[in-house]
Amino acid sequence: MIAKSMVGYVKGSSVIRAMFEEGKRLAKIYGAENVYDFSLGNPSVEPPKQVREAMIDILQNENQNLVHGYMSNAGYEDVRDTIAKSLNKKFGTSFAEKNILMTVGAAGGLNVIFKTLLDPEDEVITFSPFFGEYRNYVANYGGKLVVVPPSEDFIPRPEMLAAAVTKKTKALIINNPNNPTGVVYSEEVIKSLMDVLRDKQKEFGTSIYLIADEPYRELAYDGIEVPYLTKYYDNTIVGYSYSKSLSLPGERIGYLVMPDELDDFENIVQAASVANRILGFVNAPSLMQRTVARCVDAEVDVAAYNANRELLYGNLIDMGYECIKPQGAFYMFVKAFEEDDKAFCAKAKEFNLLLVPGSTFGGPGYVRIAYCVDPEMIKRSLPAFKKLSECYGK
Amino acid sequence: MIAKSMVGYVKGSSVIRAMFEEGKRLAKIYGAENVYDFSLGNPSVEPPKQVREAMIDILQNENQNLVHGYMSNAGYEDVRDTIAKSLNKKFGTSFAEKNILMTVGAAGGLNVIFKTLLDPEDEVITFSPFFGEYRNYVANYGGKLVVVPPSEDFIPRPEMLAAAVTKKTKALIINNPNNPTGVVYSEEVIKSLMDVLRDKQKEFGTSIYLIADEPYRELAYDGIEVPYLTKYYDNTIVGYSYSKSLSLPGERIGYLVMPDELDDFENIVQAASVANRILGFVNAPSLMQRTVARCVDAEVDVAAYNANRELLYGNLIDMGYECIKPQGAFYMFVKAFEEDDKAFCAKAKEFNLLLVPGSTFGGPGYVRIAYCVDPEMIKRSLPAFKKLSECYGK
Repeated sequence: MIAKSMVGYVKGSSVIRAMFEEGKRLAKIYGAENVYDFSLGNPSVEPPKQVREAMIDILQNENQNLVHGYMSNAGYEDVRDTIAKSLNKKFGTSFAEKNILMTVGAAGGLNVIFKTLLDPEDEVITFSPFFGEYRNYVANYGGKLVVVPPSEDFIPRPEMLAAAVTKKTKALIINNPNNPTGVVYSEEVIKSLMDVLRDKQKEFGTSIYLIADEPYRELAYDGIEVPYLTKYYDNTIVGYSYSKSLSLPGERIGYLVMPDELDDFENIVQAASVANRILGFVNAPSLMQRTVARCVDAEVDVAAYNANRELLYGNLIDMGYECIKPQGAFYMFVKAFEEDDKAFCAKAKEFNLLLVPGSTFGGPGYVRIAYCVDPEMIKRSLPAFKKLSECYGK
Repeated sequence: MIAKSMVGYVKGSSVIRAMFEEGKRLAKIYGAENVYDFSLGNPSVEPPKQVREAMIDILQNENQNLVHGYMSNAGYEDVRDTIAKSLNKKFGTSFAEKNILMTVGAAGGLNVIFKTLLDPEDEVITFSPFFGEYRNYVANYGGKLVVVPPSEDFIPRPEMLAAAVTKKTKALIINNPNNPTGVVYSEEVIKSLMDVLRDKQKEFGTSIYLIADEPYRELAYDGIEVPYLTKYYDNTIVGYSYSKSLSLPGERIGYLVMPDELDDFENIVQAASVANRILGFVNAPSLMQRTVARCVDAEVDVAAYNANRELLYGNLIDMGYECIKPQGAFYMFVKAFEEDDKAFCAKAKEFNLLLVPGSTFGGPGYVRIAYCVDPEMIKRSLPAFKKLSECYGK
């Protein structure tokens, strides 16, 4: 009796989420300390102290009907203004309140912008490997996800983008720093990709929007810079989330940036606000809106993730695992020791290691390891990783 | 460049929301105290004290990564269990954790259940006048809203429901207490409607789901009882929100109840959880989930809304306005003094009275007045209502 479109979903469900549930099941059997769950991007670092203090202060001192009440579908004006100014200070942009729309996390924001832009059969391009939910978000609005195959270093090549663009291309979605590879696209890479989009817009006489999905922006290591994409291409829309930068994934708070330079700017901004309403989000959670506005300069302890990265990467390489050292986010994309990454994950589970098959991200032959975990768990897991590698004669 | 499906929305936008924005504009010109905004169902009564205390206690004493982290897409198990038990205590039902799915408000919940159930061209029936967003929520999934015309007392008649059901009918959505009329459907009315659905299920060999949209359940006056609908019909799904009952509309917190008795129960529960994820909600806001679980017995000050109801209703009747006295929610559906309710609202705006045209709700010739406002505003607005009635020779 459920919708035909949901039958496949129920059968397949999300591999990542299934792992998450599986982890809880195994923990009940073996004890939580003997299960090594690297499956979900659930931040292990606490929110900055400032966040909790802001929430409590708002609850104690602001008008409760304003804090918990309806506001414009796009969000509180003062919150949007504060965020715009903070972006301007950080990136030298010139956004105002009208360029910001508060969303129910980045997932909400991406759905809002796809609802706003996509006609059925429109194409959205992404680079493999990619966050698997893109496929669902695009399908929600009848669009078609076009996946550009991965290069060896997971850095997209302009000629491969050029080959993928058609008259029906409505958007390119980029995730930088990248989930699942942890790769960061440099300014040079971005420039070469944007040249392609500009050329193709001219060639086809269309508007091709760049959607920059940036929940991992602040999680970058070794002093590497993550380019702010609105500077390189006029038709850029940024989707942001505080899930990772303030360790608030359960709270569902983020925003879209829609710059004045967008083709059809006025309609996009208005349609996005309507989409936020009619998709059932209505508005981003209100207390969290007020909280993030007070915490625009707060930062999670990135050093803790970096320590995890060094610890796990160093040990895995020593054991014979192959992996490009991640420069951002909190994921490693490690080569499986056999072609079938699902079989490899099943083998890993025998040692209570929960990894996610790369094929979930359009990257078969690999597994994703989320290292946003307690460092003690990483240490405890090392013998299991060792045993897993020994199974394959390493 | 925006999606064709959004063009109409941008032109029409939401009349209610446009009023809300208009109210803010007028307030800047005339001063907030001289604008009488009855347009939006934004609770005027503060959240119960218990709610704020619970939030602060959770922030101070619970593990921050658990409070703000990801959990299962359906919500925290303990929260769902607490809500199930609270419903069982209140209504003599026998729900468990698995029957509850935490949602981003009722709007999120309705979108989740429509995504779960609707194939393109499926029909969803509602009774006029109705909450206008139903049309959008159903359209989001390619469904068709079938509107049963209103009776004179706004109480639906079984024979009119019977006439509207077809082989394609997937659901009936009922809003009780009703927005915009404030009418409450009695047990007798419900029973007569459910008999129709049962007969039609047999006749067509289909499953017809009843969706009970219940954000106003606790707002009922004069000791009137609002029947709990899962008791009257097996295929009932309840959509609930704390927006009104705890005055938390901006926080986007609610739940779906999916009883064991549903046809295709297992698939529906699983599909709804997937739908919650892929629509971009991911999960209901986490701090709010933990908060409502602590406040299952908290109640807003319904007496304050009742006082508003008596004050406004008595005065409007004295001035010659016609209206069925509402028994629930915080709306009155008042007859316009001219056929064209939009023209009547425009006239009202000349006196800084912001009302919503009934045609927005499929009830032309009426206007909706939301009386969830400061009673002082009601008092200040009375001369404006008087002048408006005098324009029409009352």
